[in-house]
Amino acid sequence: MPPALDVLLVDDEEVRAAMVEEALVREGHRVICHLKSPASLNDMVARHQPDVVIIDMESPDRDTLDSMTQLNRENPRPVVFFADQHDPDTMQSALKAGVSAYVVDGLVQGRVKPIIEVAIARFEAFQSMRQELDRTRTQLTERKRIERAKGLLMRHQSCDEEQAYQMLRKLAMDRGQRIAEVATSVIDILERLEKGL
Amino acid sequence: MPPALDVLLVDDEEVRAAMVEEALVREGHRVICHLKSPASLNDMVARHQPDVVIIDMESPDRDTLDSMTQLNRENPRPVVFFADQHDPDTMQSALKAGVSAYVVDGLVQGRVKPIIEVAIARFEAFQSMRQELDRTRTQLTERKRIERAKGLLMRHQSCDEEQAYQMLRKLAMDRGQRIAEVATSVIDILERLEKGL
Repeated sequence: MPPALDVLLVDDEEVRAAMVEEALVREGHRVICHLKSPASLNDMVARHQPDVVIIDMESPDRDTLDSMTQLNRENPRPVVFFADQHDPDTMQSALKAGVSAYVVDGLVQGRVKPIIEVAIARFEAFQSMRQELDRTRTQLTERKRIERAKGLLMRHQSCDEEQAYQMLRKLAMDRGQRIAEVATSVIDILERLEKGL
Repeated sequence: MPPALDVLLVDDEEVRAAMVEEALVREGHRVICHLKSPASLNDMVARHQPDVVIIDMESPDRDTLDSMTQLNRENPRPVVFFADQHDPDTMQSALKAGVSAYVVDGLVQGRVKPIIEVAIARFEAFQSMRQELDRTRTQLTERKRIERAKGLLMRHQSCDEEQAYQMLRKLAMDRGQRIAEVATSVIDILERLEKGL
């Protein structure tokens, strides 16, 4: 038995929305928020914290794409988009806006459940790769920053690399900060001193 | 008009395979290779270079998952998996094996086309993120290696960081190699010298 999901549903057609909600409830899920337009999507996700967002629409328009992009940036969630019509350009834009499943003509009894589950799994895989990328980028940036701080210390104190590093380490311990944070302060201050500001 | 695609089809049921092929041909695509089992999938993709791989099966078994994992590692391609039955664990394994679209009960006239297009777009987005991650990891590794080589040179030559870096740069120019490559050689050699081997 998969866990019950809290769903935020965006659908401007009452009959279709009721049908989708019924299908979800039958599978043990709850529609905790129903929007008629995606304008407030990001705020509503922040407030209601759904497990998944389902949007039913003929095709995503400009405003919808913008709302999904903002959501993906600020409150990423698995988004399942059920489109009535297939248009390759719009589909590309929807994927760029972070949609986890883009399904044409797929609102069919019995198909919704696996679609949602695939979307959530895909969302999680994508998020974990994105986090891995963020982590690696941060490591690279911090490494560059520490090297830069060491270089400035070596010139300013006429010391060698090892001594410069020990200085950073000591500062970090004394201030209860990470070496990368201390490096940022050192760069800020020594660069200002060098410019005579 | 989207471009015609070369498809590699894996399907062990003749009737269903013929139906899928017909649907693909009607949309302007070609089945350039038809396999009854996924055992040789990776070799056949390497040989025929299809634009997309379509697999129709009740549910991916262990051998199929292994074949897809190997393909994803050695010859990544968009893979669309049409499963007859939904099983959450198997779906998770299929996504981990690099499937771009996992569709349950979706072999329906008119739905195949958007599914393939979404799969290709998603595959490309995923590949570009993976390449970005590979690039960032390589930069990080190379940076660490250059730092290590500089440290060894500084100790061995009793020189400062700037001189060590200039030594690496000069070596790279003389040998027509990248600094990271030269750093690898320097580490290999100096570490051996230090161990007295």
